Amino acid sequence: MKAIIINDQMRLIQTKIKTPKPWGDELLIKVEYAGICRPDIMQRKGLYPAPEKTPLYAKNIPGLEISGEIVAMWDKIPCSDFHIGQKICALATAGGYAEYICVKAAQSLSIPEGLSMAEAASLPESYFTVWSNIFDLGKLKPKEKILIHGGTSGIGIAAIQFAKSYGATVITTSGTDQKAQTCRELGADLAINYNKNSFKDELLNFTQGKGVNMVLDIIAGDYTDQNLKCLDYDGRLIMIAVQNGPKITANILPIMLKRLIFTGSTLRAREDKFKNAIAQKLKTEIWSKLASKEIKPLVSKIFPLNQAQQAHDFLQSGKNIGKVILKI
Amino acid sequence: MKAIIINDQMRLIQTKIKTPKPWGDELLIKVEYAGICRPDIMQRKGLYPAPEKTPLYAKNIPGLEISGEIVAMWDKIPCSDFHIGQKICALATAGGYAEYICVKAAQSLSIPEGLSMAEAASLPESYFTVWSNIFDLGKLKPKEKILIHGGTSGIGIAAIQFAKSYGATVITTSGTDQKAQTCRELGADLAINYNKNSFKDELLNFTQGKGVNMVLDIIAGDYTDQNLKCLDYDGRLIMIAVQNGPKITANILPIMLKRLIFTGSTLRAREDKFKNAIAQKLKTEIWSKLASKEIKPLVSKIFPLNQAQQAHDFLQSGKNIGKVILKI
Repeated sequence: MKAIIINDQMRLIQTKIKTPKPWGDELLIKVEYAGICRPDIMQRKGLYPAPEKTPLYAKNIPGLEISGEIVAMWDKIPCSDFHIGQKICALATAGGYAEYICVKAAQSLSIPEGLSMAEAASLPESYFTVWSNIFDLGKLKPKEKILIHGGTSGIGIAAIQFAKSYGATVITTSGTDQKAQTCRELGADLAINYNKNSFKDELLNFTQGKGVNMVLDIIAGDYTDQNLKCLDYDGRLIMIAVQNGPKITANILPIMLKRLIFTGSTLRAREDKFKNAIAQKLKTEIWSKLASKEIKPLVSKIFPLNQAQQAHDFLQSGKNIGKVILKI
Repeated sequence: MKAIIINDQMRLIQTKIKTPKPWGDELLIKVEYAGICRPDIMQRKGLYPAPEKTPLYAKNIPGLEISGEIVAMWDKIPCSDFHIGQKICALATAGGYAEYICVKAAQSLSIPEGLSMAEAASLPESYFTVWSNIFDLGKLKPKEKILIHGGTSGIGIAAIQFAKSYGATVITTSGTDQKAQTCRELGADLAINYNKNSFKDELLNFTQGKGVNMVLDIIAGDYTDQNLKCLDYDGRLIMIAVQNGPKITANILPIMLKRLIFTGSTLRAREDKFKNAIAQKLKTEIWSKLASKEIKPLVSKIFPLNQAQQAHDFLQSGKNIGKVILKI
């Protein structure tokens, strides 16, 4: 099968490898679309290797989310939830940029009603990540206020809509007025262009100096000190990526004085049981909201498989508003 | 009554003020001993003012813990838990360095069997703080490992013994071999002299590289980065003081990769309901262990009231091994 691998120069190139075979609770998928995620770029740069347990064939193939058709299952365990020929989208630990992939049945979901296959491929990584962090870890409550950085990233798009549909007040940051406008269209109550204004000052002004109850942060670096200042008593700072780097200089007194919780997580290395539980939650809590259009995907641009490197370059340029997708 | 106040030069001086009157659920105590705590020094330096709700007479008198005799109650609410003439120890929000103080009945506790009045005065602030942070906030579990900085401080003495009596493995830091020996006598499984060895290296060696489940930190500053490196997956860093200052430079990637929780709290400004609940817990969980000598107080030196400033100087010198106490 055709697959995209990372070469010695940390660039994506197309190659041919043996098509994998499903085993245990795996489904073999003929991939139609693969979502491109920030961790894929980190992996390409050698900063985020695939976890130990990743099947050998997939270790050097990026791609954490796909949509496609089930073409085979392990013949010893028929999977009652799905059937051959069914279209699904799924989370993967690697291997999405390829013609075929084996995914876990319990981390696969039906294509939400009314969505295209490209849109469906844009969901899993962001949706699993956002659900587990703002609800399971961060325990967001209705009527709480949340600051979401990178409002038009895959994470941002999901987080704005999940939080709004749950009754929270949403404040976002992004780097252009056009992106800020998209955040407002997705439901943000306040969308700050960080290139024009201090997000901390704008947020504290908007909240009458009180701050928010949660910050979902993909930036870290110089944002961390400001994030701590943006939080109200008992607030939670949830760090799920470090786009400005993990080295910080900060005044941490607010953690003590306001009893903040500063925590974070990564999804990829978690055990299957954890991911399976999120899949169930998404199915019951979010899939109907996608069908009713209360929650929507947002795809920026679709690249063909052989332009995977260009797709990475485009995502890194920050010009995308919404997800970047590969058509296999 | 005689009382110690903070003068304009941030020094402690003795003065005379009107004896306060009890109101509501307050008990008027004729103070015998007052414990000296690090926050008292912070208050003297102007860095930790008494909370808004502190009675006016006490705002400029340090002292968060006392022992003494009940000499009056508010005549409209007889307090069934205590009687006039009874000896107690109690938590206060300020005002301990004085001949009389009004304390909350629900934050007062009987003198533990077999303890002197000086020893009893050494307990409340550390015990309330340690209980709420390692159990309520940090959720320490038996068989977990905990790093406790400042092993021979009031906090350290309480934390080592609470954690050991709960079945945890205890690692401590302190600045001399003699202090480290005291930590071992209190039950520490590993006592590190931070002036001789890197606590991070010693701890990681002792835990076969895995790290501990909790760090109870009173240091912050340059310790924070190392504290994060000392924690195992799902570990908690609980910051309750910032003796090396609140400004840090750190690599926060471990928070995300190991799903750490970095949090903290201060006791003094918390609502009464919170403190009352801790008092109940101490009464049922700890007081019997004091009576059986499983848990012991440790008093370093007792100063007379009119040497309050010298007592502060002694605590700041770091020469004490155990609590410094004022005899009223």
